[in-house]
Amino acid sequence: MTNVKLTIEYNGKNYKGWQKQPTEITVQDVIEKAIYKITREKVNLNGSGRTDGGVHASGQVANFYTNSNMCGSRFKYALNTVLPKDIAIVESEEVKKCFHARYDAKGKRYKYIIYNDKTRSPLCDDFSYHVSYDLDINNMTENAKKLIGTYDFTSFASNKTNKENKVRTIYDIKLEQKDKKIEIIYTGNGFLYNMVRVITGTLIDIERGKIKVDILDVLKAKDRTKAGITAPSCGLYLEEVYYNDISKKYK
Amino acid sequence: MTNVKLTIEYNGKNYKGWQKQPTEITVQDVIEKAIYKITREKVNLNGSGRTDGGVHASGQVANFYTNSNMCGSRFKYALNTVLPKDIAIVESEEVKKCFHARYDAKGKRYKYIIYNDKTRSPLCDDFSYHVSYDLDINNMTENAKKLIGTYDFTSFASNKTNKENKVRTIYDIKLEQKDKKIEIIYTGNGFLYNMVRVITGTLIDIERGKIKVDILDVLKAKDRTKAGITAPSCGLYLEEVYYNDISKKYK
Repeated sequence: MTNVKLTIEYNGKNYKGWQKQPTEITVQDVIEKAIYKITREKVNLNGSGRTDGGVHASGQVANFYTNSNMCGSRFKYALNTVLPKDIAIVESEEVKKCFHARYDAKGKRYKYIIYNDKTRSPLCDDFSYHVSYDLDINNMTENAKKLIGTYDFTSFASNKTNKENKVRTIYDIKLEQKDKKIEIIYTGNGFLYNMVRVITGTLIDIERGKIKVDILDVLKAKDRTKAGITAPSCGLYLEEVYYNDISKKYK
Repeated sequence: MTNVKLTIEYNGKNYKGWQKQPTEITVQDVIEKAIYKITREKVNLNGSGRTDGGVHASGQVANFYTNSNMCGSRFKYALNTVLPKDIAIVESEEVKKCFHARYDAKGKRYKYIIYNDKTRSPLCDDFSYHVSYDLDINNMTENAKKLIGTYDFTSFASNKTNKENKVRTIYDIKLEQKDKKIEIIYTGNGFLYNMVRVITGTLIDIERGKIKVDILDVLKAKDRTKAGITAPSCGLYLEEVYYNDISKKYK
């Protein structure tokens, strides 16, 4: 039996997220069916975590066990021939039997793209969140920096989360202006359900004056209603899942 | 009567190009219908030129005449509320009665995006041309530079072109590597039907060794069969239409 690790890129637009669902088409579903076409095995693909409907990924990670004799690195080529255009395997490799994409993940990096201009952009639609209010990334960076550290992020998680422990460590939040796009890069040991989208929405809502509050007071309140909107899924990208300890890099 | 100039961005994926057609949905069609919704007038929109099905634009230009009293600059906002998500008016303004988007155009700038990696990219699909062969942009730049100047570009035009005069001036061709993307920027006084796509396809075919020929011999042959493939429309963007004389900038 071989344990195969996949690194996956997908355009989330046409999927109801990562996680398999009874009646909806999801990314996990489509990849498991592709594996079946190659191996004739019904496998269970362990993703590093769920992504919501519309969320994109350039570096989602998953693993599965197979009795196939195919070399781990060949799965990339075999699967890419049967996968639809909006999903691709970027890398495949054989890993130790004990490797688990979710349990072994030590951190994640997400990117959120805001398209900041008076006029919406047909070429960036589906791949960014259009905000027509003038945003100053210096102010937003100042607020973002306040959230770096180990905190209870209850205020910034969807109430639908089923996690008991809401304490997470954000190692870094970096904002970059690229012409009309603002990219926000979040790196942390893990993120609660909707956490990146709610932090992004709150940074925007404070900057445009829709909510007048210190972001540290939102954090301390441990109350979702004190934070801003949940920024839409189309602007969010899961960029990398870390399996080594990245905390030292940010000390 | 007001002459209104529009600058238009569109994602060409879902359209059979710019030009109105009896049975297909085109960009011109959709914008004329949007103008009708705003003004109740059936106008004829003069585009700066056709773009093929699948070709994108960030700076297509068109003009139309209206009896509406609306200020030229307001059309942008009015039209964007009724246009679909994949078309937007970037700018609108009142111009002199004699302005014509096609006849007055003095030059154009196009961008072609190649996604150059072994693996296709779900996030760049529809917005670039995936080439899995290793491309060296230094070699490609050297070949591209040979086409700068005033020449008969018959070899690089679709046989379907109905233009008698095949002489055009290319002011500049610039290649830039941006991570896995290669961007080729073409600036000229005008381009024949498919010319940017055929030059791009020929630069790729020579670089990967599919055709073994000096690009200057292709140019001199004035024979479309000597050139390379027509690179697909999804990688092409009309970026700007020039109404001032840009030739001096490139002297």
